[in-house]
Amino acid sequence: MTAADRAWAYLSRVVEPPSRELAALVADVGPVDAAALIKSGRLPDGKLKRLTEARRDVDCAAADVDTLARLGGRLVTAEDPDWPLLAFRSFNGSPVCKRPAGVAPLVLWVIGQDSLADVAERSCSIVGTRAATSYGEHQTADLAAGLAERDVAVVSGGAFGIDGVAHRATLGAEGLTVAVLAGGVDVPYPSAHAAMLRRVGEQGLLVSEYPPGVRPARYRFLTRNRLVAALSGATVVVEAGLRSGAANTASWAEALGRPVCAYPGPVTSSASAGCHVLIRNGALLVTRVEEVVEVVGAAGELAPEPEHPASPLDGLTDVELRTYDAFPARAARTVDELAVAAGVPPTDLLGPLATLELAGLVRRQEGKWRLALR
Amino acid sequence: MTAADRAWAYLSRVVEPPSRELAALVADVGPVDAAALIKSGRLPDGKLKRLTEARRDVDCAAADVDTLARLGGRLVTAEDPDWPLLAFRSFNGSPVCKRPAGVAPLVLWVIGQDSLADVAERSCSIVGTRAATSYGEHQTADLAAGLAERDVAVVSGGAFGIDGVAHRATLGAEGLTVAVLAGGVDVPYPSAHAAMLRRVGEQGLLVSEYPPGVRPARYRFLTRNRLVAALSGATVVVEAGLRSGAANTASWAEALGRPVCAYPGPVTSSASAGCHVLIRNGALLVTRVEEVVEVVGAAGELAPEPEHPASPLDGLTDVELRTYDAFPARAARTVDELAVAAGVPPTDLLGPLATLELAGLVRRQEGKWRLALR
Repeated sequence: MTAADRAWAYLSRVVEPPSRELAALVADVGPVDAAALIKSGRLPDGKLKRLTEARRDVDCAAADVDTLARLGGRLVTAEDPDWPLLAFRSFNGSPVCKRPAGVAPLVLWVIGQDSLADVAERSCSIVGTRAATSYGEHQTADLAAGLAERDVAVVSGGAFGIDGVAHRATLGAEGLTVAVLAGGVDVPYPSAHAAMLRRVGEQGLLVSEYPPGVRPARYRFLTRNRLVAALSGATVVVEAGLRSGAANTASWAEALGRPVCAYPGPVTSSASAGCHVLIRNGALLVTRVEEVVEVVGAAGELAPEPEHPASPLDGLTDVELRTYDAFPARAARTVDELAVAAGVPPTDLLGPLATLELAGLVRRQEGKWRLALR
Repeated sequence: MTAADRAWAYLSRVVEPPSRELAALVADVGPVDAAALIKSGRLPDGKLKRLTEARRDVDCAAADVDTLARLGGRLVTAEDPDWPLLAFRSFNGSPVCKRPAGVAPLVLWVIGQDSLADVAERSCSIVGTRAATSYGEHQTADLAAGLAERDVAVVSGGAFGIDGVAHRATLGAEGLTVAVLAGGVDVPYPSAHAAMLRRVGEQGLLVSEYPPGVRPARYRFLTRNRLVAALSGATVVVEAGLRSGAANTASWAEALGRPVCAYPGPVTSSASAGCHVLIRNGALLVTRVEEVVEVVGAAGELAPEPEHPASPLDGLTDVELRTYDAFPARAARTVDELAVAAGVPPTDLLGPLATLELAGLVRRQEGKWRLALR
């Protein structure tokens, strides 16, 4: 265990993250000196001194680092090549981010083999209500598996409902999934998802801004949501009620300048009401994985047009269509009769009639014309 | 029967409407002389002469006007105070309307008592697929009845599916509904809607650009759709497949500068696929009548925010919420213990604790604090 690791671990707990003031001190004197300054109480009077007052004597950094090591995890900070610098570029007072709490994390506690920076380069979050309907679960599973197939990492929050289905479907498709937790990486939450989260740590990444043992709390979910948004090229809300954490994640994504997508659903479903509000407020309506990849992927990964049902009349010109429509269902007509019905001079009908005959739509019969049998 | 009526009726049939060239001639010499010129074949060589060639000898104007009179109808032209001039302002080469066929009608054949100009001032079209699902029918009925209650006329095309439900629900709510037909006003189409269309003519308006006896045809539906859009303050598509006349009406509305709204539905429903494409291309997602009235109504008719579920924690400040979240589910804690858990200096906790106590969320017990039973 290095002195730096112990210092980062101490700093991760001494102030409730994220803290702009703590980040400034660390940038100034480095993590080891910052930790020593705080612990000794020798900080100058000011906001950071107050912020560190309650917890500066609580030092379980060594135990925390041990716990992490036992879980096979690692600390990731801005000093590591693994740090997703690009994903966090919009934090810390970037003009894009208008929120006061738009502060990059200081330390991430990570379990899993993949590089966080690599993963964040091609990733998409799928979030939504815990009270998902079977419709929402089905769409989530389809989308997650589709993203996995296209090598897009699926980021979510590990919760019941949409989050859990997103992780499970990605695991099932042997894709890469990232769960960002609102408590310590050793505190599986919800506990019913302990086995799933263990698999996420084995096959993907478990990420938290909080040291081991920290319980999730309401404000930690909100803070966590900013990391879900930041680690994703786009955020997709599959189902969300009017009051939903997913809307919070979406607003983080928007503040960070990342695209927000939402699935539509029946207007009678309260589980889609939050999605509809998002779309009304500018989120992109999406209905299938191709449309999501178009937003999240590299330039040029365009969704193919949905296939329209074809008709034999496709591609007819206006006058050809008018000619065709002038035919009665069964009877035969002379060219002059067709001309009156279509309101087109008889001589102008000859070209269109030839085209329609070639297309097998009409046929000649004893000097008259009639619709071909189809 | 006036000479002018007979002339208008003749002009309405002699060229397949609408015709920019015919409109120009009528504007130049008036309807009576225009009709006489065409009938006599004395038109100068040119496009209009060719356009009128097939039908100039077909004169059933007197019979047509008789038929209309028998049905209790009237001809409405730009010479009548009843002409919806404002509704048609975007036609005829206005910069808004980019389509070649964006030509105002010359003559409207109308059955019903209400003034077309008045109706068009506060109206909304509801259109959609003939293959409506029960979801779409339900939403259509709700929307139509809601518009009727708010004195918004409901315009549609009289077809099976969404159109028919829109007319029927408006009639049922004793609202005003307008059916714009793609054939003569004496040709109920589809024939299964004959009784409904008769009621529309009695309680609302039946409108057509085509003289009596004209059968609907494919291109007439497309031409008719521009009138549905023009006579409506906004167009709402409730359900539409990927290949749908409703999308055509919507594109007319857009070309005419009128708002286009669409209902979302399950992504698994092909009857909603066209709506989703419209929304992706810029149509406004709507979920209830209030949101439609906001677009169609007078300035200031704003939709109330949907009611969010309330929580006793609403309105707490960040530090109050953090304090509340620092409590364990059952045990009691000292202020110092709470301070460590919340990461807030103990003295900063006293205010929030008092607020939470007043709100009945926490209580004191033997010098400690615990969550109140709820």
